[in-house]
Amino acid sequence: MRLLLTLSILSAGFCCAQAVDDSQPPSSNVMGAQYPRISSDLRATFRLRAPDAKTVQVQVGADQKHYDLEKGADGTWTGTTPPLVPGFHYYYFFVDGVQVNDPASHAFYGVSKDSSGIEVPEKGVDYYLPKDVPHGDVRSHWYYSKLTEAWRRCFVYTPPGYDTNVRTRYPVLYLQHGSGEDETGWSIQGHVNFILDNLIAAGKAKPMIVVMDRGYATKAGAPAPAPPVAPPPAAPGVAPAGRGAPGGGGRGGAPSIFEDVVIGELIPMVDATFRTLPDREHRAMAGLSMGGAQTFQITLNHLDKFAYIGGFSGAGGGMGRGTASFDVKTAYNGVFNDAAAFNKRVKLVWVGAGSAELNGIGAGVVSFRDALQKAGIKVAYYESLGTAHEWLTWRRDLNEFAPLLFR
Amino acid sequence: MRLLLTLSILSAGFCCAQAVDDSQPPSSNVMGAQYPRISSDLRATFRLRAPDAKTVQVQVGADQKHYDLEKGADGTWTGTTPPLVPGFHYYYFFVDGVQVNDPASHAFYGVSKDSSGIEVPEKGVDYYLPKDVPHGDVRSHWYYSKLTEAWRRCFVYTPPGYDTNVRTRYPVLYLQHGSGEDETGWSIQGHVNFILDNLIAAGKAKPMIVVMDRGYATKAGAPAPAPPVAPPPAAPGVAPAGRGAPGGGGRGGAPSIFEDVVIGELIPMVDATFRTLPDREHRAMAGLSMGGAQTFQITLNHLDKFAYIGGFSGAGGGMGRGTASFDVKTAYNGVFNDAAAFNKRVKLVWVGAGSAELNGIGAGVVSFRDALQKAGIKVAYYESLGTAHEWLTWRRDLNEFAPLLFR
Repeated sequence: MRLLLTLSILSAGFCCAQAVDDSQPPSSNVMGAQYPRISSDLRATFRLRAPDAKTVQVQVGADQKHYDLEKGADGTWTGTTPPLVPGFHYYYFFVDGVQVNDPASHAFYGVSKDSSGIEVPEKGVDYYLPKDVPHGDVRSHWYYSKLTEAWRRCFVYTPPGYDTNVRTRYPVLYLQHGSGEDETGWSIQGHVNFILDNLIAAGKAKPMIVVMDRGYATKAGAPAPAPPVAPPPAAPGVAPAGRGAPGGGGRGGAPSIFEDVVIGELIPMVDATFRTLPDREHRAMAGLSMGGAQTFQITLNHLDKFAYIGGFSGAGGGMGRGTASFDVKTAYNGVFNDAAAFNKRVKLVWVGAGSAELNGIGAGVVSFRDALQKAGIKVAYYESLGTAHEWLTWRRDLNEFAPLLFR
Repeated sequence: MRLLLTLSILSAGFCCAQAVDDSQPPSSNVMGAQYPRISSDLRATFRLRAPDAKTVQVQVGADQKHYDLEKGADGTWTGTTPPLVPGFHYYYFFVDGVQVNDPASHAFYGVSKDSSGIEVPEKGVDYYLPKDVPHGDVRSHWYYSKLTEAWRRCFVYTPPGYDTNVRTRYPVLYLQHGSGEDETGWSIQGHVNFILDNLIAAGKAKPMIVVMDRGYATKAGAPAPAPPVAPPPAAPGVAPAGRGAPGGGGRGGAPSIFEDVVIGELIPMVDATFRTLPDREHRAMAGLSMGGAQTFQITLNHLDKFAYIGGFSGAGGGMGRGTASFDVKTAYNGVFNDAAAFNKRVKLVWVGAGSAELNGIGAGVVSFRDALQKAGIKVAYYESLGTAHEWLTWRRDLNEFAPLLFR
């Protein structure tokens, strides 16, 4: 897999100047932490106390470079980056070469571990922030899976009014995270609830339930999962090559049965537990990266259950991983062979990619779109300007995709 | 404040033997991480890859000692602890003296930051584990606070049946975390949902709503919070001396207005949003450590609103911090002066402490109990055998306390 050469840090150079006066701690800091700080020109100043360390470096988001911090007389190391791309970036310190988290940052599950993250504000943009509108809840919901013989946790967004409109039933969007992330990703890094709250309040999206399940499932008794492989920090959410079947999630060799869990257990549980509209015209699925590949696999194999399909920086036919073996005629049991019938039956096929990932994962998304369009399949495409294989791309995707559902 | 000399690591000695054959990764590990591992005799083997580090140590839970790990030829450091006390312990690596998280562990907000944690199983005990019983949900719920001019997040456990019994109203327990922790603590480290699910299924506790708010609130415009002060790892959840008023939460000098937020905003919001029984006979409050002190302050100042009171390793009158200035006659505007009237009005005063914290915070809890009993106030007391100022003490507290509510 190619490394992504992207633009989290827009220009070269790294200096040790103090943060300029207008700098503020980002919302991703733990309470009271004054560093890291971000100035109005989006430079970030990092700081770590490590009196006995020989070297301290920082690496932020899709930029692979390790930037040296400079040691002060009090044993505190400091450094300021060039302006960062807005959005959420995972980041790490390297203390004498060991990759560690910043104790000043909350930890966010991504890159197969709880990682530091920095939320770089996007000027004038608030669609993913809490506003004075009615708010839905995100519920942590446990259910037992007979297929995996394990308790599973999903998160379920219920829209504003769900508790009071006790006779109303709602359509459902199944929304999946990427590889190395988990069921917490969309509500923590993704701000799914605020995006939906704001869309619904503005009348731009229909009130809907959003179900975010854990994208990993292996058969009970399958070999234990392998140790986590840390993908390059450039590509959080990307399924490393060779990890399981195209559907993803078969960590360490045991094949993924996530499709079986979704069809046989998750959907029936959701329809029995929540006030859903349980037909295919009121059921959508989308996912990011590996979750996009899973979405195409599951929806295209079960078009009796889904009418809306979305891939965010993730595509079908293996294209989300940059492979070129996709044959639109044979893929998914030939579902694309009759384009007219497909276009009539499926209300929406939607794919998105960040402009800064088009030399990597994004290229597969574009190729997938092109192959489908060449075969006469209607595909909507959205490109997120300036963003890489990161969460701001996927927040924007959701903000564009959700309004098109259940129309 | 005295350091707690407790017993997370039961005996001295630290060796570099491999984990014995029956060792298993704890549930606190990230997916696929094979280390740390815990053997059946509760020894834990830790491992970290750090080829360029000069020293690597580990420190676990209430034990202050740093144990040296030994470097292998491949740059991986390994070490096995003596048997650990069951329950959840925060832990850290020290790489060349810098305290860092273990990338193999999930991160848990405590000690004023997202910290590594290890869940040591308790043989034959499953009251805090998921079982084949009906499950309630834990909802992440956002609300706007005019007093602080900020969005606040609380977590709300709704019991099994809440969604289907749409005419049923429920009593409410307000349940608070300790200092250095936040509103996530009870549902993540505390397993509040499984404890309540299991109690309710067994008929031992009444179905109830549990509200877990963020125990920090300062007036809008108050000075920015100070940088986080890391309390000694021995005492996660303990309010360091001098941090705000007795009620706690006034981080960095700005006085806490948490009491005003609970009384003026949180309770009205909960009663308007959820199907509660909104009278004092159906409202309880409890909290751990700082949350215990907050509970006594808030409930004793507002006995028109609460009939059940609990302090888990946290007490009133400043006793939870080991100060000895508590005067039962004058405290809380003399609420204890008429013991008969108090005992009639308040259905339950309950305090708990771990036997391994009785030379620290626990001593204050016992002194508080003694002072109240001497004044004729009925106080229930529970001691958690062998546990320190840690989450297993508080899980047990909740498991003992919840069955006594709303009788």
